[in-house]
Amino acid sequence: MARTIGVEEIEYLALGAAVLGTGGGGDPFIGKLMAQKAIKECGPVTLLSPEEVPDDVLVVPTAMMGAPTVFFEKIPNGDEALHSLRRLEDHLGKKAFAVMPMECGGLNSTIPFVVAARAGLPMVDADGMGRAFPELQMETFNVYGVSGTPMVITDERGNWCLVNTVDNAMMEHIARGITVRMGGVGHIAEYPMTGKQMKETSILHTTSLLIDIGKAIVHARERHESPLEAMSKALAKSIYGTPVVLFEGKIVDVDRTTAEGFTRGTVQLEGIGDYSGSRFQVDFQNENLIAYRDEEVVATVPDLITFLDLETSKPLTTETLRFGFRLVCVGIPTPEIMRSQKALEIWGPQYFGYDLPFIPVEQLAKKRG
Amino acid sequence: MARTIGVEEIEYLALGAAVLGTGGGGDPFIGKLMAQKAIKECGPVTLLSPEEVPDDVLVVPTAMMGAPTVFFEKIPNGDEALHSLRRLEDHLGKKAFAVMPMECGGLNSTIPFVVAARAGLPMVDADGMGRAFPELQMETFNVYGVSGTPMVITDERGNWCLVNTVDNAMMEHIARGITVRMGGVGHIAEYPMTGKQMKETSILHTTSLLIDIGKAIVHARERHESPLEAMSKALAKSIYGTPVVLFEGKIVDVDRTTAEGFTRGTVQLEGIGDYSGSRFQVDFQNENLIAYRDEEVVATVPDLITFLDLETSKPLTTETLRFGFRLVCVGIPTPEIMRSQKALEIWGPQYFGYDLPFIPVEQLAKKRG
Repeated sequence: MARTIGVEEIEYLALGAAVLGTGGGGDPFIGKLMAQKAIKECGPVTLLSPEEVPDDVLVVPTAMMGAPTVFFEKIPNGDEALHSLRRLEDHLGKKAFAVMPMECGGLNSTIPFVVAARAGLPMVDADGMGRAFPELQMETFNVYGVSGTPMVITDERGNWCLVNTVDNAMMEHIARGITVRMGGVGHIAEYPMTGKQMKETSILHTTSLLIDIGKAIVHARERHESPLEAMSKALAKSIYGTPVVLFEGKIVDVDRTTAEGFTRGTVQLEGIGDYSGSRFQVDFQNENLIAYRDEEVVATVPDLITFLDLETSKPLTTETLRFGFRLVCVGIPTPEIMRSQKALEIWGPQYFGYDLPFIPVEQLAKKRG
Repeated sequence: MARTIGVEEIEYLALGAAVLGTGGGGDPFIGKLMAQKAIKECGPVTLLSPEEVPDDVLVVPTAMMGAPTVFFEKIPNGDEALHSLRRLEDHLGKKAFAVMPMECGGLNSTIPFVVAARAGLPMVDADGMGRAFPELQMETFNVYGVSGTPMVITDERGNWCLVNTVDNAMMEHIARGITVRMGGVGHIAEYPMTGKQMKETSILHTTSLLIDIGKAIVHARERHESPLEAMSKALAKSIYGTPVVLFEGKIVDVDRTTAEGFTRGTVQLEGIGDYSGSRFQVDFQNENLIAYRDEEVVATVPDLITFLDLETSKPLTTETLRFGFRLVCVGIPTPEIMRSQKALEIWGPQYFGYDLPFIPVEQLAKKRG
């Protein structure tokens, strides 16, 4: 059922988006402010349930692409992704019926609300990643056969490109090159698709889930629950698995570089409490990819690896991690649709250059006992 | 007056284009074969004198961009630049009246003939560089106020992008990034302009000049002239100055790399004949930029620096230079329109990172006596 999303829901959404953003997707704080400003100026946004979207209409995912570290310093005007949508509509000779998120993590959960509010369009409650991923071909739309192009990319100075490629890996390759030349961040409208394609290839109801997760964390204390328990309950009603605590510790080192349109690096933690004497490491490329405890792999992409502040349970993105932060790291089992052989070829650990099989985070936990 | 260009004229044109290509613009040999094939299949091309083009029609320069070394190994299908023209026309909602070259050097003198023959369009006898230059903002169109975008870039696999930028330096920056991601070579339609803009901003009658230069070199021996004398006579009737012999020698070293979408390097020669005991060096970025004799600067961009085979007077491009080749190097004074303060800011030695003033090649020669 359609619902209306106002300033308050965006508050919850941004919090939930940082959990499923698995460290990446850009800091939701700026995206939250952008979405709230757009809603205040243009009115609330209608969130459509996927089944309410007719089969033959045009649906367009919009997003930011690039290095989240750069986005943080190069704040957008707020109309870049809308500009990309409009130019894509011009090229297709067809108006969009609705917009939708490309991923359900970080900033990119809120950007489509900016576009929806400013364009007066509804947004679809679904996405193409079920989390955040660093590359444009890492979308269920690609896995299940939708062409990513024509796509449009716009920067904050008004430069823009229409990209058409023979496959979606080449779209990522060329669009990433453009993003780098735009200074590290671009704003895109991509995978233009029919309502039917959207329903067949998306991860459904993820925006609602993000709002539920955010609300659960915010109101946990009132219900005398730990925020982590509350989050688990919210996830229990979804297609995601039950979160597993991977580690509790203090950051002792962060190694982070911004290159080739990505934020890459590793973070090291020393254990506290039950984890005293242990070490923990997470490698990331925009998003957290692999978690090791004392050199043993405890979680890998596409399962979600998320850092929460130990006191407040607020999720943290990779670009905000600093020496001394006290954190809990949780692993969230990704939905089964994202663990198929076809899907793992596109976003499994081997794609990222790791000579590791994908073993579900809940199985790794059971093995440790 | 309009004239008809057939297979034979293309033969002369390619030779002249290697002279004014000043080492770059891509090997004219492949471009020649492409143009001759297109003319054989589709008929000869009408070459229009600029004054025959109405003021209010659309004229579009087409070209190859990228590293000539790559072009040599990644031979095009032949319809890439035509595809770029067609997509640009679609975007503008207007058909081109004529095509024209972007530069009058190397391959890019012949590419527009491929497009003209296949599209059944005339070509304008004018260009935007009066030689070859490595970057897209280095065009008289840019110097005298034409927007380079919208422009389209297509590769041999069918990938293509429409680029729109706030200025022409950004067009070069983004289009170069795309070219690199396309594998080092792209085929473009850019600086869409009116007939009036073309007449006000181009270097006129340069295609005819190339044909005259080529013809002069080929038929020199029949007239008991040296090819160099014949070339000088052809240039004497143009807006270019009289060629100056800078050196005669043998190549003892070539240092050449292909990176960031360019071919860059230096070539070293040891003198022979009158130049015995002297050394000679030319630095290049696609085109020859600076020539030194025994460490003294003897010619700089935008004057033309061209290597000719010592026996045959055939011009050589940077990517074909090899150890042991015996060459004569000539400097050709560039037309005055290309030596204005505004023009030198865009393509003078300082733009290429040299802390050198531009001193005309004929003045440097006079100083040496």
